[in-house]
Amino acid sequence: MTQNRVFNFSAGPSMLPVPVLEEVAAQMLNYEGSGMSVMEMSHRSSSYLEIFDNTKALLKKVMNIPDNYKILLLHGGATQQFSMIPLNLMKNGKADYVVTGAFSKKAAQEAAKFGDVKIAYSGADNTFKHIPTQEELELRDDASYLHLCANNTIYGTEWKYVPETNGVTIVADMSSNILSKPVNVSDFGMIYAGAQKNMGIAGLGVVIVREDLLEAHKENIPVLMEYDTMADNDSMYNTPPAFSIYVLGEVLKWIDGLGGLEVMQQRNIEKADLIYDYLDQSDFYIAHSDPANRSLMNVTFTTPNKDLDAKFIKESIALGMQNLKGHRSVGGIRASIYNAMPLEGVQTLVNFMKKFEEENK
Amino acid sequence: MTQNRVFNFSAGPSMLPVPVLEEVAAQMLNYEGSGMSVMEMSHRSSSYLEIFDNTKALLKKVMNIPDNYKILLLHGGATQQFSMIPLNLMKNGKADYVVTGAFSKKAAQEAAKFGDVKIAYSGADNTFKHIPTQEELELRDDASYLHLCANNTIYGTEWKYVPETNGVTIVADMSSNILSKPVNVSDFGMIYAGAQKNMGIAGLGVVIVREDLLEAHKENIPVLMEYDTMADNDSMYNTPPAFSIYVLGEVLKWIDGLGGLEVMQQRNIEKADLIYDYLDQSDFYIAHSDPANRSLMNVTFTTPNKDLDAKFIKESIALGMQNLKGHRSVGGIRASIYNAMPLEGVQTLVNFMKKFEEENK
Repeated sequence: MTQNRVFNFSAGPSMLPVPVLEEVAAQMLNYEGSGMSVMEMSHRSSSYLEIFDNTKALLKKVMNIPDNYKILLLHGGATQQFSMIPLNLMKNGKADYVVTGAFSKKAAQEAAKFGDVKIAYSGADNTFKHIPTQEELELRDDASYLHLCANNTIYGTEWKYVPETNGVTIVADMSSNILSKPVNVSDFGMIYAGAQKNMGIAGLGVVIVREDLLEAHKENIPVLMEYDTMADNDSMYNTPPAFSIYVLGEVLKWIDGLGGLEVMQQRNIEKADLIYDYLDQSDFYIAHSDPANRSLMNVTFTTPNKDLDAKFIKESIALGMQNLKGHRSVGGIRASIYNAMPLEGVQTLVNFMKKFEEENK
Repeated sequence: MTQNRVFNFSAGPSMLPVPVLEEVAAQMLNYEGSGMSVMEMSHRSSSYLEIFDNTKALLKKVMNIPDNYKILLLHGGATQQFSMIPLNLMKNGKADYVVTGAFSKKAAQEAAKFGDVKIAYSGADNTFKHIPTQEELELRDDASYLHLCANNTIYGTEWKYVPETNGVTIVADMSSNILSKPVNVSDFGMIYAGAQKNMGIAGLGVVIVREDLLEAHKENIPVLMEYDTMADNDSMYNTPPAFSIYVLGEVLKWIDGLGGLEVMQQRNIEKADLIYDYLDQSDFYIAHSDPANRSLMNVTFTTPNKDLDAKFIKESIALGMQNLKGHRSVGGIRASIYNAMPLEGVQTLVNFMKKFEEENK
């Protein structure tokens, strides 16, 4: 690969497109003739505001975001949203949470500090292999919102449908699958994501929220946690994570230049199918998630035992593949194959999987 | 200058050392043979943890931070601290705030949401030209802490002494003068700073806090706002602003390589004196701040009238000097001359000031 780069299967922060890194490096001392790096720009300067506005406009275009949604570019990643959501959106003090993994569990625990949280479904009993069907969800008609995590990084599961909620608005954590495929934004009251998986670098939380939800928040909450204040100040109540926003803009240009989210989806299906198809015909590897809920972004599986898992990881590193070790709560192998992972990386992995199976079965 | 760079007098985000930018650019596709950018590294990976730990160790060395202080590297910049300080440190519900500018006022307003805030002094009546003397401070012996802003970016004033507080711990916002000179950390219970002025890029808040202050916070506060949780997780409860922390490390290497904070202070005095000495002998320009409180970092002054201020700004831009326009609340000119501003930039400014005075007086 270019400049001896590895295939980085990290779950996040994770691989970025090489053209984005090249562009960022090329502009590091002098961004487009401004005489300075984007890192050095006042966030109130016209050069920076152009970057900021173009980034928002491109996100709106790429995700086809309707006009009645605001885009907020905030500090703190998705975890800051775990607090902001109940502090701002739990209008009647009640919210339903679907727990399909570690992050949705954290989100629910955080929300329970601020109101009445009902767990509409928990996958804890099945090691989070499964995404609930509509029938398995226990929803309250008077919940302020239903919260779900659209893709579960650790377990490798992904929602394939939008639940019916009888009018209750859905808030979705899309940290690990945003920009991986087209989404109908209007199906959600709010979509949010930490940027460090498919959007750029850590420290930035992207929030796409329907304007009518921006009304009254709880009283006397930290000012940076008020959605209305952030919206009124166009995410610049204080200095925003300005450089991370610039990198997001570069990632969006890359996606847009390749044809947008339909093309991303095709590429991602092609990559994921390569691994899943191999797993399905193998009686050596065991896929973790239910076939119906398989993530396009995070593929989780195990070899027949832990010693072989460890051997697999060790040998993969020697072949230029990094961060294939599964999360400690699942074990085994996890291949995170976000937008920036090239097909070549997945082919290298599958070829190695075949060879490893032959040598060790 | 290198690569047609300008002299960027922005108050923040602001100029970074060229060697830092060059290093960051050079490592953008492959950090020290890791095969990936720092942007792409899992924050739990050994390569990233080495960067993280070295950054903290170097900050400890450069600032001579005692062993009983924790270094936290947090999301959200200084404004997030405006909330975290009262939520965590206002143990008995009372705190005193010295208001010497816009940011200390915001800090006090935020704290007043969470407890009994007394304004120990306000410079509002003198357009914040002045830093209070010990005698001007109205302090409460039973305050949980005294908050002050060590350098006021907008007004160009700086504290030149540490107030006597009869045992009340001092919390200092050093966003705009941290790393500009040696500081006796033990004089403070907590020092904090947004990174985007003298430490690196926006989105990172650096907190140096005495361990005994980390105890009980208010109940049911947002998890990212709990100092003890952040300390227990070594600032990695969630993905930290990892790339900003790396840039901070590079800035610290640059400072350390030049000889540390004593050398920074000498350089900064030399630069600031060039401007202040010229202002003092001029009867054209008017310096804003009291001579006793002049900031080494932000030099504020006006020409005889607003038209000349505007003309000054316009001509300075044509000569390769950017962002000299003063904040709207003061008007006039503001030259922010942080560590990374070379002497040559200040000389260019002073030469222009002379020429402009001659042509317009």
